[in-house]
Amino acid sequence: MTGDDLDKAQSGETVALSLDEVFALSRSVLLAAGLTAEQANPVARVITEGQRDECHSHGLFRLPGCVQTINHPRFNRAAVPVVESTTAAVTRVDADFGFSLPALEAAMPRFVEKARAIGISVLAINNCFHFSALWPEIERLTAQGLVAIAMTPSHSWVAPAGGTKGALGTNPLAFGWPRMGADGQPRDPYVFDFATSAIARGDISLHKMAGKPLKEGWAIDAEGNPTTDAAAALDGAMLTFGGHKGSALSTMIELLAGPLIADMTSLESMEFDDGGKAAPCHGELLIAFDPTILGGGSRDNQASSERLFGAITDQGARLPSLRRYEARARSLAHGVTIPRHLYEQILALPRAG
Amino acid sequence: MTGDDLDKAQSGETVALSLDEVFALSRSVLLAAGLTAEQANPVARVITEGQRDECHSHGLFRLPGCVQTINHPRFNRAAVPVVESTTAAVTRVDADFGFSLPALEAAMPRFVEKARAIGISVLAINNCFHFSALWPEIERLTAQGLVAIAMTPSHSWVAPAGGTKGALGTNPLAFGWPRMGADGQPRDPYVFDFATSAIARGDISLHKMAGKPLKEGWAIDAEGNPTTDAAAALDGAMLTFGGHKGSALSTMIELLAGPLIADMTSLESMEFDDGGKAAPCHGELLIAFDPTILGGGSRDNQASSERLFGAITDQGARLPSLRRYEARARSLAHGVTIPRHLYEQILALPRAG
Repeated sequence: MTGDDLDKAQSGETVALSLDEVFALSRSVLLAAGLTAEQANPVARVITEGQRDECHSHGLFRLPGCVQTINHPRFNRAAVPVVESTTAAVTRVDADFGFSLPALEAAMPRFVEKARAIGISVLAINNCFHFSALWPEIERLTAQGLVAIAMTPSHSWVAPAGGTKGALGTNPLAFGWPRMGADGQPRDPYVFDFATSAIARGDISLHKMAGKPLKEGWAIDAEGNPTTDAAAALDGAMLTFGGHKGSALSTMIELLAGPLIADMTSLESMEFDDGGKAAPCHGELLIAFDPTILGGGSRDNQASSERLFGAITDQGARLPSLRRYEARARSLAHGVTIPRHLYEQILALPRAG
Repeated sequence: MTGDDLDKAQSGETVALSLDEVFALSRSVLLAAGLTAEQANPVARVITEGQRDECHSHGLFRLPGCVQTINHPRFNRAAVPVVESTTAAVTRVDADFGFSLPALEAAMPRFVEKARAIGISVLAINNCFHFSALWPEIERLTAQGLVAIAMTPSHSWVAPAGGTKGALGTNPLAFGWPRMGADGQPRDPYVFDFATSAIARGDISLHKMAGKPLKEGWAIDAEGNPTTDAAAALDGAMLTFGGHKGSALSTMIELLAGPLIADMTSLESMEFDDGGKAAPCHGELLIAFDPTILGGGSRDNQASSERLFGAITDQGARLPSLRRYEARARSLAHGVTIPRHLYEQILALPRAG
């Protein structure tokens, strides 16, 4: 908890919750919205993990958006994922137009088993509504000793480098590398999870609400001109991070997590939404590598990677996810706090038993 | 070095060569330096391809550097790659401390066959000296209808975001997506190949020679302070593109193409070089996907990807590699030109036969 958060907590603007309470609250809202328990449980779990790690935009803050997604005419409240073991390396799972997370859980055992058996394995999730951060699923894989990559398209809010209007999604890329401590016990993995857009779309909205200008390079207006005006940016398009390189990377994600797995691009997903403002519906691609097979057992890959991490941190640079792990430790010890207005917004939603 | 830089460097005086002459000249220099024909041929081929596509810094300009690499005490002039078919998905090839390209050629048939059989396949090249662009190998895979990714570490000239000194390499990432024309015939694939450093190391040297300032954000000096002075940058470190996201991506490449496949990081490769200024020696990781398997045959992935490319180009944005394909058409029709001083530098090297 930061000093600011503490001040707010003391002035009564926040509400303290245990992680069990976050889970129960999320689950009861999702069930009341009509989800089956099979759909609701994994979603409630990942919302709890987001809140625990103080990724506030992926915590309870997402719950009203999940309800809006559930109410979309194309969402399937009783979706039952169907797992297909395509080849020795490939697993496909049809999410049946429910959330991505139940489909991921259904396919995870086979996906992991294949990576362990032959060194690399790919999981294609199709027809899933996707609202969640990718790091929770990356961590499920690193916890099993696997190196992991995950990516998805989104909606076509992002202009390509040199362009004037949206064609790409915010297209997150996430990666994880398992780490062992000197005592041979697992420690927090190396994990990153970033949008390939210059900034998250929600942050543009927050700047608009606060009347604050955007940074240069974040967005263009409806005519394709650079803008720092948040309202103009919402009518225009966001830009990718890193200029033409970020734009190329975002295009790669469109292709790998879209047409490669016979699912929608961000352009197609936005059309599918048909103005419903649900979470984007599309595919997701995950790749898992088993380092014990790829390394041929000939060399201690942990010594080499730990030396790299040391070279980064010894000079004062930070590894990604460190702030999350610090937040996690606090939340596991003391629970979490959320703004009272968010808590009241959630309590105003229908809840089950 | 860009074409413009080369033109300026020698005041317009150039020598015209056919592509066959580029190949023969490269091959004779490599053989005279002591390479076996099995090592020399693939290297001469990729230099010819670089020159053909007017990627001047990967064309004949590289030949003197190749000779310097061959003369490194740790380089194996008579290297014989050993291919190991590790699993149904994984192929490993030990380059035997020769160049990466002969190892790649030796392993390519099995690598491709596995991707076609089970949808995804990974190739780990170990113990290779690496000087070449990655797009030629990406194009060999897209020409066979496969989607491809390639990456390597390099030498630790690049500081992590928030850091003050080198820990990462220039770490290129390349990607390719095969494209079909409306007539059902293959057309130029979607390919990108970029360094995750903000700028290529050679460009810093060119700025130093020209007495030109660097752009902000490209480099830091030996004390870790931002600098636009090229000499100070060469004593300091380069930065990644795209801030902390580019830095995370570069770290991923270190891990996947280094410790994952039991090979060296950029830090370790620079130590291995021991001041010899050879091309970096390390590993390389390639991944190939077969879209006919991953897509389940259920949907026309070309229609979806072509629509995405159209959405990018219809608004005036360019696809990566377009300039290369335009140069290729010119070179195939008319041959290439290189600066006279470079031609004379190459003629001054020992040549075979």
